[in-house]
Amino acid sequence: MLPFSFHNPTRIIFGEGKASEAGSVTATYSKNVLLVYGGNSIKRTGLYDSIKSQLNQAGVRVVELGGIEPNPRLTSVNAGIKLVRDHQLDFILAVGGGSVIDAAKAIAAGVPYEGDVWDFFTNKASIQAAIPLGTVLTLSATGTEMNGSMVISDWENKLKRGSGSPHVYPRFSILDPTLTYTVPANQTVYGSIDIMSHVFEQYFSLTDNTPLQERFCESILQTVIENVEPALENPEHAAARANLMWCSTMALNGGQISLGMQNDWASHGIEHEISAIYDIPHGAGLAIVFPNWMKYVYSERPERFAQYAVRVWGISPEGKTTDELALAGIEATQAYFKRIGSETTLAEFNIDDSQLERMAEEAVRYGPIGSFKQLHKDDVLAILKMCL
Amino acid sequence: MLPFSFHNPTRIIFGEGKASEAGSVTATYSKNVLLVYGGNSIKRTGLYDSIKSQLNQAGVRVVELGGIEPNPRLTSVNAGIKLVRDHQLDFILAVGGGSVIDAAKAIAAGVPYEGDVWDFFTNKASIQAAIPLGTVLTLSATGTEMNGSMVISDWENKLKRGSGSPHVYPRFSILDPTLTYTVPANQTVYGSIDIMSHVFEQYFSLTDNTPLQERFCESILQTVIENVEPALENPEHAAARANLMWCSTMALNGGQISLGMQNDWASHGIEHEISAIYDIPHGAGLAIVFPNWMKYVYSERPERFAQYAVRVWGISPEGKTTDELALAGIEATQAYFKRIGSETTLAEFNIDDSQLERMAEEAVRYGPIGSFKQLHKDDVLAILKMCL
Repeated sequence: MLPFSFHNPTRIIFGEGKASEAGSVTATYSKNVLLVYGGNSIKRTGLYDSIKSQLNQAGVRVVELGGIEPNPRLTSVNAGIKLVRDHQLDFILAVGGGSVIDAAKAIAAGVPYEGDVWDFFTNKASIQAAIPLGTVLTLSATGTEMNGSMVISDWENKLKRGSGSPHVYPRFSILDPTLTYTVPANQTVYGSIDIMSHVFEQYFSLTDNTPLQERFCESILQTVIENVEPALENPEHAAARANLMWCSTMALNGGQISLGMQNDWASHGIEHEISAIYDIPHGAGLAIVFPNWMKYVYSERPERFAQYAVRVWGISPEGKTTDELALAGIEATQAYFKRIGSETTLAEFNIDDSQLERMAEEAVRYGPIGSFKQLHKDDVLAILKMCL
Repeated sequence: MLPFSFHNPTRIIFGEGKASEAGSVTATYSKNVLLVYGGNSIKRTGLYDSIKSQLNQAGVRVVELGGIEPNPRLTSVNAGIKLVRDHQLDFILAVGGGSVIDAAKAIAAGVPYEGDVWDFFTNKASIQAAIPLGTVLTLSATGTEMNGSMVISDWENKLKRGSGSPHVYPRFSILDPTLTYTVPANQTVYGSIDIMSHVFEQYFSLTDNTPLQERFCESILQTVIENVEPALENPEHAAARANLMWCSTMALNGGQISLGMQNDWASHGIEHEISAIYDIPHGAGLAIVFPNWMKYVYSERPERFAQYAVRVWGISPEGKTTDELALAGIEATQAYFKRIGSETTLAEFNIDDSQLERMAEEAVRYGPIGSFKQLHKDDVLAILKMCL
């Protein structure tokens, strides 16, 4: 176990119907709020009207920024920063999934910064302050509701970059699983793959002596796996939706499940390059990249992959070598992603090999990526080719 | 899963040697500090000198309150409150195990309260404010380093009571596993049983649909079980000490592993009555009470106990009924407590049946205890008799 510091100040308000507290909770923080949301789904479901009416009743002045894209864009972030400044707002309420919340975080960090907010995503500056934000989560996926990370795309330049800071942890996040009842099947699948992928990035680690952390990781993986199909069969399956939502938050809440472990994050880096160019769903990109990354790197520590096969997938170790077990676990992962309905090859998105070089180059622009196995450009290219 | 709120603002600083940061970290909070500690062990190990010198170098004015007892006493708490007020201090640094930290929390809550601090422990008042505190943990056991709970004894009246508040979460806790290298074998054993017992209170629950929470609980139990004996064999076993320390914190950090689950806490209530009268180690009391509580209540939900037997103890379910499995898990628990060197009967402490009635009566003074099975006076008495 490595030394670590941990501090996660986000207040979680979890439960069926808790979205009805959004207005009153927000009002305890501010009366001048930027309301950030995405497409039409929250209008269709009535959530938008409910939140607006709650804020109104709580005496909160609201300025709106709707239309945040999946893979949220820098242009939206800049628009939000301008709104906050122009209207002298001092709090952001993000209502939506990971994209909306990430955009809200970037706005929060951009407001007190005099330079270009994109500096935070190109290592030109680090976040020194942010205005506070709260969230109402509508999709179980990224974990952004309880961490200090965000990913933004500069669409004009086909760049997708992450940043983070303790300053952008949400002050509160309302987790109401009933809000995910209307999430379409494919988004449920992609979100769940995102959750699992966050755990993979932490679990496949070379750090020794982390038995509790490994078990926490396995706990989330097992719980996601057993809840996705019930949620697909019955989108209003209260138990499955609640479990997936809590898994999403615990999988990436400031790295709590893997404190003291070196994380990898190469697969996310590779996926970001794919979706920066092709705008495919993040979860689908991860379903494509991860099993191939696993095959490429597992021999660095086959025992961890064998443990994964046994503990997460219940594969019997009897009569199998460590390598066979490891590979069986990887196959089970890919087969599961297929079974729940995800794409697992680039070809399914009609993506050919024409941009692979560029992606590989961009992925390692700041040097090799990953820690389980350090990946250079050639390694990334090899993995991308396996994804075709 | 039940609705829940969660907010844990304690900053954790974990790692070998991190105790050397106590002075500088404390100085970022205050320059006028009450230093609270226990017996002579921190003087013997050099930790006391190190902390004093660090605080001195960081320009912190220190007033001391040493000699906090195991099962910390109200008299010490009142002495601490007086010191803080007399010397106009505004921060408490607790260096020690659960007793020291609990005493520090009670002092922190007592300082701004005009009435008797004991009111917080008798439901006469609730904590509305507290001065801030930080901790340097020297024993893996109670979890108090990352929660808002405390237990204090009124020794004159043979009363042991708990209280809690969001106001007494430590601002920071330094978790340096090397500080536990000198913990004697029996304290290592009792502390580990305390950790396991905290998990039991949360895990044996009637709440449905909590698969992630159950697995988190099982993760801690398994990790404690596999690390106690290595730490006993080699007290400076870095990995085992680190794992036990992190388990202790995660087992009871505001209930995070069991959010949305109804907790029980009857066994702790029963144990408190035993140690209030006989001053036996809390962990030993739990080792005595818990297996008997389990036997008394398991039939309320034998499936949970069967799951415990299989997942935590690796007992094969083949050819066993649910009840047989449940009982096998309970037997394994008691046998384990014996094997690692704990007492498992009251007789081993020369405690006879003369005070059982009084204990049972005190345990239910505010009404029946427990939620897995509601225990009335006769139930508590029956369990206590099983403990003889």
